[in-house]
Amino acid sequence: MYLESIEGPQDVRALTAGQRVALASEIRHAIVHKLAARGGHVGSNLGFVEATIALHCVFDGPDDKIVFDVSHQSYTHKMLTGRKDAFLNEECYGDVSGFTDPDESDYDLFRIGHTSTSISLASGLAKARDMRGGRGNVVAVIGDGALSGGEALEGLDYVGGELGSNMIIVVNDNGMSIAENHGGLYRSLADLRATDGASPNNLFTALGLDYRYVAQGNDIDALIAAFTDVKDTDHPVVVHIRTEKGLGYAPAQARKEEWHWHAPFDETTGRSLEAPARTYMTETGDHLLDLMAADPQVTGIIAGTPTVFDFTPDRRARAGRQLVDVGIAEEHAIALASGMAKGGGKPVVGMYSSFLQRTYDQMMDDVCINRSPATFCILNASIWGMKDITHLGLFDIAMIGNIPGLVYLAPTNVEELQAMMDWAVAQTDHPVAIRVPANEPTHAGGRPVRTDYSDIDTYTVEHRGADVAVIAAGDFFELGQAAVRAIDDRLGIDATLINPQFVSGVDGKLLMALEDDHAIVVTLEDGMLSGGFGSKVSAFYAPTAIRVLSYGFAKTYYDRYDPAEVMLRNGLDPDMIARDVADAAADIGLAHHGRA
Amino acid sequence: MYLESIEGPQDVRALTAGQRVALASEIRHAIVHKLAARGGHVGSNLGFVEATIALHCVFDGPDDKIVFDVSHQSYTHKMLTGRKDAFLNEECYGDVSGFTDPDESDYDLFRIGHTSTSISLASGLAKARDMRGGRGNVVAVIGDGALSGGEALEGLDYVGGELGSNMIIVVNDNGMSIAENHGGLYRSLADLRATDGASPNNLFTALGLDYRYVAQGNDIDALIAAFTDVKDTDHPVVVHIRTEKGLGYAPAQARKEEWHWHAPFDETTGRSLEAPARTYMTETGDHLLDLMAADPQVTGIIAGTPTVFDFTPDRRARAGRQLVDVGIAEEHAIALASGMAKGGGKPVVGMYSSFLQRTYDQMMDDVCINRSPATFCILNASIWGMKDITHLGLFDIAMIGNIPGLVYLAPTNVEELQAMMDWAVAQTDHPVAIRVPANEPTHAGGRPVRTDYSDIDTYTVEHRGADVAVIAAGDFFELGQAAVRAIDDRLGIDATLINPQFVSGVDGKLLMALEDDHAIVVTLEDGMLSGGFGSKVSAFYAPTAIRVLSYGFAKTYYDRYDPAEVMLRNGLDPDMIARDVADAAADIGLAHHGRA
Repeated sequence: MYLESIEGPQDVRALTAGQRVALASEIRHAIVHKLAARGGHVGSNLGFVEATIALHCVFDGPDDKIVFDVSHQSYTHKMLTGRKDAFLNEECYGDVSGFTDPDESDYDLFRIGHTSTSISLASGLAKARDMRGGRGNVVAVIGDGALSGGEALEGLDYVGGELGSNMIIVVNDNGMSIAENHGGLYRSLADLRATDGASPNNLFTALGLDYRYVAQGNDIDALIAAFTDVKDTDHPVVVHIRTEKGLGYAPAQARKEEWHWHAPFDETTGRSLEAPARTYMTETGDHLLDLMAADPQVTGIIAGTPTVFDFTPDRRARAGRQLVDVGIAEEHAIALASGMAKGGGKPVVGMYSSFLQRTYDQMMDDVCINRSPATFCILNASIWGMKDITHLGLFDIAMIGNIPGLVYLAPTNVEELQAMMDWAVAQTDHPVAIRVPANEPTHAGGRPVRTDYSDIDTYTVEHRGADVAVIAAGDFFELGQAAVRAIDDRLGIDATLINPQFVSGVDGKLLMALEDDHAIVVTLEDGMLSGGFGSKVSAFYAPTAIRVLSYGFAKTYYDRYDPAEVMLRNGLDPDMIARDVADAAADIGLAHHGRA
Repeated sequence: MYLESIEGPQDVRALTAGQRVALASEIRHAIVHKLAARGGHVGSNLGFVEATIALHCVFDGPDDKIVFDVSHQSYTHKMLTGRKDAFLNEECYGDVSGFTDPDESDYDLFRIGHTSTSISLASGLAKARDMRGGRGNVVAVIGDGALSGGEALEGLDYVGGELGSNMIIVVNDNGMSIAENHGGLYRSLADLRATDGASPNNLFTALGLDYRYVAQGNDIDALIAAFTDVKDTDHPVVVHIRTEKGLGYAPAQARKEEWHWHAPFDETTGRSLEAPARTYMTETGDHLLDLMAADPQVTGIIAGTPTVFDFTPDRRARAGRQLVDVGIAEEHAIALASGMAKGGGKPVVGMYSSFLQRTYDQMMDDVCINRSPATFCILNASIWGMKDITHLGLFDIAMIGNIPGLVYLAPTNVEELQAMMDWAVAQTDHPVAIRVPANEPTHAGGRPVRTDYSDIDTYTVEHRGADVAVIAAGDFFELGQAAVRAIDDRLGIDATLINPQFVSGVDGKLLMALEDDHAIVVTLEDGMLSGGFGSKVSAFYAPTAIRVLSYGFAKTYYDRYDPAEVMLRNGLDPDMIARDVADAAADIGLAHHGRA
């Protein structure tokens, strides 16, 4: 086995051509074997094995610098740069993340997880090199799916027109994004594939870039020849390579979308080890399909991630022309929704909290300043969402909850989610975002479900007590219920429980009324505290005697974390909350008029 | 005079070709005459007079819909759609804004002021039309300078590949942005101009769009012919027209950059009526030039707006290769800076607060998660910044001040700004943003200037008093000084005065120490309160007995406002603050242990 003896790229270079082919096969096997146990990006890594081997044979890292877009295809790179054990040895599986990380290796330049950033980041490395009169190659590796992102297109334009020095952009064209590609540039890529790179219909040359094409993107020798040819170039050049996603693992090759990322599976059959659970994404998508069926104007908009609505191909077929996938182009998705809403349509955008970060300005200027009544379902905005540092979903309340004019709703269960979607789509006065929970779906049970949210920033009192009020937002509502029980257990205080429903504003009338017979207000939110929901309640009560205890997540980055552990670390536990309330109560002498 | 009788587009259509030429001349005169008195976008409007006349002759607004990118070139459009008086009658000059506004006219579709949004917004109108089986043309008008923005490129890609129905994109190519163009796509435009549209090096066709070229972009008849030709097209088409910026007013034609936007001027000579004042932008640019001279690694990065550093062409020449203008491409600018910083360079980005909104994700993922030690100077982040609803600079603290890892500094005078820039550029531990003031530059005078900011989130106590503490950030520091005097006058309380310097975090040690002998804390910030600096102080004190009074701006949009009036409306006045403090003091019985 060759892989076991690879300590770094120099060991790859020492192999013969035939040995490298064997190495590729070993790498592929290691990827499939590890991901069968752990889950991860299957297809994108399998397609880029040969190209990674070729890159490390030709370029001299870490002096030559390779920046991987999204970096979800960097598993082979990790294996070849001193981290093979994390793929060969089960005990070491957790030693590396699924993305590049400079803390792991000097061969990794950035922590990357969002798409379309590699060209800009790499051009910065190139520019810094030029400013100090340095040498060395800078390589950006970007998939075709990521090319449609505005940051990538801005980067191509800059590099093509301004950089004027060494930079190599490897376009890894496997003919698809997570799902099928969308957008005009894919016709250009298709033309180039069909003509062996000769078509004049060429996005890259139109942006001022030199260009070459490699049809055999899974042939190590062909790639080595192409990379050798452009190594030490004195100007930016695109090397467009045609690869096959999922190559070498039959299930991944046959069903590419399903295998872009895959949960743990049986290596022999490709079957998932666990039956897929019904999630809030399924619930959101199901309800959207119902809304679409009831009204042909309702149009789902997604940006390359049909998973936000659990929109598998069959469900996309059901949505038909009532679904628009703009490809990876979040800014455009939001502005498109604003235009549709202004034009009388009923757009419902689905976007992950982490990727919504691309659209702050579009939410502000294109949507909210224009009061466009579009609906935005924000997914994985939760500690139970994606757990890599680059994909956290904890910042959205601070981000869009402070934009004037946006109504941000946080449902606490499936029926409330449905009611909020119904209301948002029917009304025409406000842009409305809905913070879809990410815990296991719960149901209203006996709790009544509010159907009208037109009285903006009015909270619902679920239980009226005294002395202490717990305002528990979204998927932390159950934690609020538990905290109320714990406060009763510890202090004998019958606390008020409030479902705020709105996380973008405070119910001033209710909060003022609470001052009459409450002394302590607790806020709970499944997001970062800084700039978040609780900070609005704190600011409201800041000039008063009310003590506010806000619970959520500290202003820091978490990475590959255990949600239960992070919650405890942030005091998000009914008993810890009750203890804090007891301390505060003692501090202000509340125990005297409490009932305990 | 024809213009006086134009009540709507139908009156333009009724004119003969010769009369329309005369109308264009009248419009041009009205633009120059009004802007001489009021200031505004001179060059961009003068270049687009004929095209606007032609658009309204061919398309049937408001059923046919025209979306103007940035909409700073919409003055002729306003004159032709019932708003001529706002250009002909001095008393009515203030009746219209400098941008499109649906509240002014049904012919205006959106409030727009940021670049690169028109294609996406218009495509939303087109898609909504298609979903309901409607008819009518949708037109987006976009300048060449705005094409490099990611949102525009995403929009082109979507329209070229996905829309599949009527949409017309008029590319108004005047060969420049605010300053000269930057980026590879401008070579494609130049090729197309040089070949009368025949070059195969065509960005638009590469993105799947139909295309035609009009060399005579200031010839009404040529434009009418071209627009008539594409009217009611069943697929998206780009009409690339060559216009001349500033046409018809000699000074604007000769010095295009200076006349993109111009302050009031003498109509005959083109001379400014007021000598340009020395601003914080000049101060920032001057100091950056000094830093560049001292260290060849220091590199300024701008995104199409050299005005952020008051970088006139002569000053850009001084900066030489130490200045990178990426064109209108804010996302790329931020990621480029991250790459440069990681590559050992010393990038200093200059960006207006309003346009920084484009870069939330880049600040978070490309910069902060990677701890890239780049420097960001944020300009016009102030009530004294740009005053149109689309260009407000009040949201940046809430936006980037809540991003983990970003150090956001707010200098209170020129020397502190310089010291912060020196420190930010020299250090290699943190991404650092500097909130450059926007009032009239003030100087440290006798106040000592701190040079080391490496002890993150430590505030400076400028005066140690008791009972009341005033924490006054950035260019509201002088207001803080005045508030301290007013509190003394009214209450006889010698209040503590604090210059926080850091607006992205709280000095927990200092704030805790204040609890010993202070009961009221006042915060002042030149930004939106929601999610802002004061909310952090409120959140810190929320569980304590300290009363916090936070002053800043309410969570709403202001438009074409008077700063003094808006400040008063938000209680930002020393006497009003002192009165609020007196009320709070009375409420908690502070008067008894106050010294008055």
